[in-house]
Amino acid sequence: MSKPLILVTNDDGITAPGLRMLIRFMRELGDVVVVAPDSPQSGMGHAITIDSTLYSKKVVIDPEHGAPEEYSCSGTPADCVKLALQELLPRRPDLCVSGINHGSNASINVIYSGTMSAAIEAGIEGIPAIGFSLCDYSWDADFTPTREAILKITAEALNNGIPPGVVLNVNIPRTKGQPVQGIRICRQARANWKERFDKRMSPGGREYYWLTGEFELLDKGKDTDHWALSQGYVSVVPTQFDLTAHHAIQDLNNWTLNE
Amino acid sequence: MSKPLILVTNDDGITAPGLRMLIRFMRELGDVVVVAPDSPQSGMGHAITIDSTLYSKKVVIDPEHGAPEEYSCSGTPADCVKLALQELLPRRPDLCVSGINHGSNASINVIYSGTMSAAIEAGIEGIPAIGFSLCDYSWDADFTPTREAILKITAEALNNGIPPGVVLNVNIPRTKGQPVQGIRICRQARANWKERFDKRMSPGGREYYWLTGEFELLDKGKDTDHWALSQGYVSVVPTQFDLTAHHAIQDLNNWTLNE
Repeated sequence: MSKPLILVTNDDGITAPGLRMLIRFMRELGDVVVVAPDSPQSGMGHAITIDSTLYSKKVVIDPEHGAPEEYSCSGTPADCVKLALQELLPRRPDLCVSGINHGSNASINVIYSGTMSAAIEAGIEGIPAIGFSLCDYSWDADFTPTREAILKITAEALNNGIPPGVVLNVNIPRTKGQPVQGIRICRQARANWKERFDKRMSPGGREYYWLTGEFELLDKGKDTDHWALSQGYVSVVPTQFDLTAHHAIQDLNNWTLNE
Repeated sequence: MSKPLILVTNDDGITAPGLRMLIRFMRELGDVVVVAPDSPQSGMGHAITIDSTLYSKKVVIDPEHGAPEEYSCSGTPADCVKLALQELLPRRPDLCVSGINHGSNASINVIYSGTMSAAIEAGIEGIPAIGFSLCDYSWDADFTPTREAILKITAEALNNGIPPGVVLNVNIPRTKGQPVQGIRICRQARANWKERFDKRMSPGGREYYWLTGEFELLDKGKDTDHWALSQGYVSVVPTQFDLTAHHAIQDLNNWTLNE
């Protein structure tokens, strides 16, 4: 039986330690091709490049542990997936994995996440897809403890498929050497970011801002990704790209719009 | 009674004719403050600026029909909303409207839409929000026929509120002078883009790509935004930022993940 073809991408860029580790894990399960941004693209959401040109080139980053074929791309994570599927891959992949992101994409972070936008782009194209994130923002985070959960979830996805229209958002807690408590299927916790803009003056006398903020949890449920992570579990949220709030259609049909 | 405070933004930039027209419409309903990108941001999805600086300045674009207060911002549409709420507005707005986009944000386009990301950002912050788009990509599109539907939907939103966690995605067909057939509450049509990359050679001999593609409808339902627009109706899709595919949780609980 031929091995599954796995497309690996991310939003932190092709040299990011999280991506390099994910490539190693995926090589245990299948044939890997990498198409990833040539520079960090965090916070890019589902941006695509429509008004400028895209560059891509074949690269070798890590001859020993890298994939046989790797491409860097000047575009966003969603661009990488589009380019991979249309131009670079030898055939339609069996799976697309994105990450391992340096930092959480749980709760409302999914909306801003380039990691998840790459996975969602693959999902829109009908390819089973998973985004992986470690809740540790540092560049030299230790990704080795994520191996077991990532291999387990990926193997189940390859075996069972993923329901159509669904993409998995997997977040892994930072356990400081302890094993994780287990893996939980969750819903996205309600939350937002309380922004604070740090206003500064440039050397030339021009005011500018840095966006900063604090995460504000609005949800006490014990079935959420945020709760699972706080208890040391890996969270798996089935995520969809049909954004329709079906429950609200009936309400809105009571509005007076056609008189 | 004091007039409602309405934040107006977009993704085509502060000088875009669609935004200028939306400002005029909103001035019929309330006090308007504009915070919009200083350059076009189409296809930016829900990108935010976290690794670079943001600039904003007070501007006057159209002394006669513009808003008394307008700010341009160097960031993405989502940045504009964050900056408006935290730094620029005198108080929390009663409504945020985004658009009028030059081109459709119906169906799967909502995922890539900077117009909708601005509205969704406001929704995450608990502010009623609506994105408006005209299905005409040209810069000199005729926005005057959109007035009646936009005022009707906005007035109903101000009167009734919008259900919590829901943001409206309104698309208006291009009717070439005919009146619209009416306004329909819809769900997002299933579709994707069949990408095609146009590969070219730069004067310096470097290969590059342009992303192009064709819309592919995967949905024959007559309750979708795509169907409503094709019949000359304005489509209103209640859109949510809880991306959880709740229906898939039970399926995934059958996976073998904790043995």
